Amino acid sequence: MTNPFFKNTGPHKINFLLKSVNFKLQHNFSDENINDIKDLHSSKSGDLSFFHSKKYNDSAKSTKASYCITTENLKYFLPDSCKPIVSDNVLLDTAKITEIFYPESVCDNFDITASDINESEFKEKVKYGKNVLVGENVNIGTNCTIGHNTIIEKNVNIGNNCSVGSNVIIRNSLIKNNVHILDGCVIGKKGFGFFPDKESNYRYPQVGIVIIEDNVEIGCGSTIDRGSLSNTVIGKNTYLDNQIHVAHNVKIGENCIIAGQVGFAGSSTLGNSVMIGGQAGISGHLKIGNNVQIGGGSGVIKNISDNSKVMGYPAKNLKNFIRENKW
Amino acid sequence: MTNPFFKNTGPHKINFLLKSVNFKLQHNFSDENINDIKDLHSSKSGDLSFFHSKKYNDSAKSTKASYCITTENLKYFLPDSCKPIVSDNVLLDTAKITEIFYPESVCDNFDITASDINESEFKEKVKYGKNVLVGENVNIGTNCTIGHNTIIEKNVNIGNNCSVGSNVIIRNSLIKNNVHILDGCVIGKKGFGFFPDKESNYRYPQVGIVIIEDNVEIGCGSTIDRGSLSNTVIGKNTYLDNQIHVAHNVKIGENCIIAGQVGFAGSSTLGNSVMIGGQAGISGHLKIGNNVQIGGGSGVIKNISDNSKVMGYPAKNLKNFIRENKW
Amino acid sequence: MTNPFFKNTGPHKINFLLKSVNFKLQHNFSDENINDIKDLHSSKSGDLSFFHSKKYNDSAKSTKASYCITTENLKYFLPDSCKPIVSDNVLLDTAKITEIFYPESVCDNFDITASDINESEFKEKVKYGKNVLVGENVNIGTNCTIGHNTIIEKNVNIGNNCSVGSNVIIRNSLIKNNVHILDGCVIGKKGFGFFPDKESNYRYPQVGIVIIEDNVEIGCGSTIDRGSLSNTVIGKNTYLDNQIHVAHNVKIGENCIIAGQVGFAGSSTLGNSVMIGGQAGISGHLKIGNNVQIGGGSGVIKNISDNSKVMGYPAKNLKNFIRENKW
Repeated sequence: MTNPFFKNTGPHKINFLLKSVNFKLQHNFSDENINDIKDLHSSKSGDLSFFHSKKYNDSAKSTKASYCITTENLKYFLPDSCKPIVSDNVLLDTAKITEIFYPESVCDNFDITASDINESEFKEKVKYGKNVLVGENVNIGTNCTIGHNTIIEKNVNIGNNCSVGSNVIIRNSLIKNNVHILDGCVIGKKGFGFFPDKESNYRYPQVGIVIIEDNVEIGCGSTIDRGSLSNTVIGKNTYLDNQIHVAHNVKIGENCIIAGQVGFAGSSTLGNSVMIGGQAGISGHLKIGNNVQIGGGSGVIKNISDNSKVMGYPAKNLKNFIRENKW
Repeated sequence: MTNPFFKNTGPHKINFLLKSVNFKLQHNFSDENINDIKDLHSSKSGDLSFFHSKKYNDSAKSTKASYCITTENLKYFLPDSCKPIVSDNVLLDTAKITEIFYPESVCDNFDITASDINESEFKEKVKYGKNVLVGENVNIGTNCTIGHNTIIEKNVNIGNNCSVGSNVIIRNSLIKNNVHILDGCVIGKKGFGFFPDKESNYRYPQVGIVIIEDNVEIGCGSTIDRGSLSNTVIGKNTYLDNQIHVAHNVKIGENCIIAGQVGFAGSSTLGNSVMIGGQAGISGHLKIGNNVQIGGGSGVIKNISDNSKVMGYPAKNLKNFIRENKW
Repeated sequence: MTNPFFKNTGPHKINFLLKSVNFKLQHNFSDENINDIKDLHSSKSGDLSFFHSKKYNDSAKSTKASYCITTENLKYFLPDSCKPIVSDNVLLDTAKITEIFYPESVCDNFDITASDINESEFKEKVKYGKNVLVGENVNIGTNCTIGHNTIIEKNVNIGNNCSVGSNVIIRNSLIKNNVHILDGCVIGKKGFGFFPDKESNYRYPQVGIVIIEDNVEIGCGSTIDRGSLSNTVIGKNTYLDNQIHVAHNVKIGENCIIAGQVGFAGSSTLGNSVMIGGQAGISGHLKIGNNVQIGGGSGVIKNISDNSKVMGYPAKNLKNFIRENKW
């Protein structure tokens, strides 16, 4: 995962980490340093990983992680170089340890570091409106405009020739060149991810960011959440209309056209040149191919292959939709 | 109804009230004081009530109100202690008199009393951003944060350990502890309630408030309208995603999970532990039970009993939806 | 089209215009002045027009334009007084030349002319909140209120007795009397109109404005885009609830009631006294008659005649919807 923003507080001692989440010590671990927590594929020696579903057996077998939070049944798939840490709730314990490494990824309170752009390095470089605030770790390229009351919170890179409207809030985002973000958008806030608990839900860390590629336009009042364990991506030259919601980890391809009030649940992937009519909804964890056309108001709840035209709720082949609906 | 906020301008003389709404005097009322206008059940001696539908016969029979706006046909259900005032349009006349008692409940113009938090009692107590405004009759507990450009308008109580994002507007709301309200929400504004009129619609008073219980989270860009004649309530530990609309008088239970872009029409009641997928819509005046699961994109137009799983438009039993839809 | 706002930079020499869009000169045009670019019907002698579809044959035959961008096949319909300019892409070339006449209609960057209302002519006349900005070419009538952080950008006329909430942005709009615009709306921004291009989409000019007639109310968080080649209109005494999206060129009649989260795609026309339930969507280029009722959640994809009641996705006669759906 590309994430230039969240600071890793590691290394931490393995026994400290386990105690912090109330693990009983199940092994005589020597008190090694753990550098980071990553998925099975990305982990290196010295890292901690997690493994909670058979789907990831292959990744587990070849992981280079030194430790892995997993279940009693799954631990046998791990290589000898990776010490299993058996948990009753792999994802919850992973979340808690991720929070130790990346404490800033949980808190989305307003950016208290944001201050008047007039007192920043951008005073001469950027054309900006009244009451604009800029946080720490922000870069803005040449020939950019930023509208009134907009807040560029911490951890934002903006390229060249970008326009950001008024009343916009951006955080934890990588925005390339020639991008236009219209009024009232909120980009880079935490996604809707948590472990339900009857007393008080437990928010898991959202360590990902939002990446907006060249030539993208985002319509007024849209919200784009940052990724949880990967990134949220809007591909090159894709245009979003007003009041669109893009949940965490969604990846939208290039040259897509997305009409007003469309909503994306988490972790779906769209190909290139996808067109989506107004108010359509895309469920989570789906794969939508290239050159797909989705009719307005559709509810997409399964994968869609390249070059398909679909419509309906649930969305089906457009020809079938037309045949079945005499209106 | 719990409403600590709107100031009652009463008592008013009964004949003054009737003249104000252009009633012809139908009785030789002695010019008694009327203390308040309430529903049939809540009224006490000295109060005025209203009775416009047979559904409320039982409440009418036992009301303690001294006067009641009602119809020629319904007036016979009232007890002798309650003097009927016959009207051609019970709800419109009730609205007009409610407006006399609670004039502030009709106007939702910006809060002109809101002023710089730096000049308020909260300067030391609250962690806040730039350009934060606070109105009259506001209380904020300990350990709270309030983001940039946020306006806490008049009549707001915020408990302890709450975070309010940036660009948020709140009015007439009771917010308990550990509540998180994300960027760009508008909470406590008047609901969409009025009497249509060809020349100029007549807005009826919205005397209710918004109550947000402990541990709730409200996603970016959501709108929660205050109640008209009861309150709008979000139950304990319920999480709302981005761009959700909650209309007046809606009551959502505890531990509910509501995904992005869901909309609630007015006056529906949800039980506890209800899960609703993205973009679903809940019609008005419905009763949704406990532990109900509603699929994304569903349109719910009838009551749903406890422990049901529904999906579709109109929403039906999930098994039937799956059987009928091969997709 | 009524548009008091965008400044026409013309006249321009015809050969300059053609060269600017990379036309090869197809005629020995004498270098005449062109005053304006308009549709076939509105053009006068000295204007340039465009003609791209057989649908407009009748208008073409009677146009008074001196020049017309058209196709090889259509040019024969033009009168002798109108010189054809043959193009491979009529709409794209029209857009490019429109941009020369109306360069401001393409750029929707934040209004850099907007400045503190305290330093404006409105200081005494309007009741306003903190941090209110007003741009060039703004008029505001008597007895109006404007909420905190609101930006009245350039080219806005507001009538008498209007209230504008907080965090609102308005541009290029004509707002009549007794209009109420609630918090967080964005009104008058460019619509979602462009020519897709694999490298970088080409935005066409949005020369229209938004017209909001007397007694209208617009709910919180709504977006109303201005017209592209005509205007976007909200008729007298029509009420819109929260989070509604009205795309460019939509015309909504009088006394309509539109519930929360409804969306209108571009260029549809609604009659008077239309009622639309929450989350319904209206496709583009449709004609909805008078006194039409559209159920919540409906997806309207064909014209609807006067006095009809429809519901469903796709929307159909309400009786049929009820018969077909046992729920």
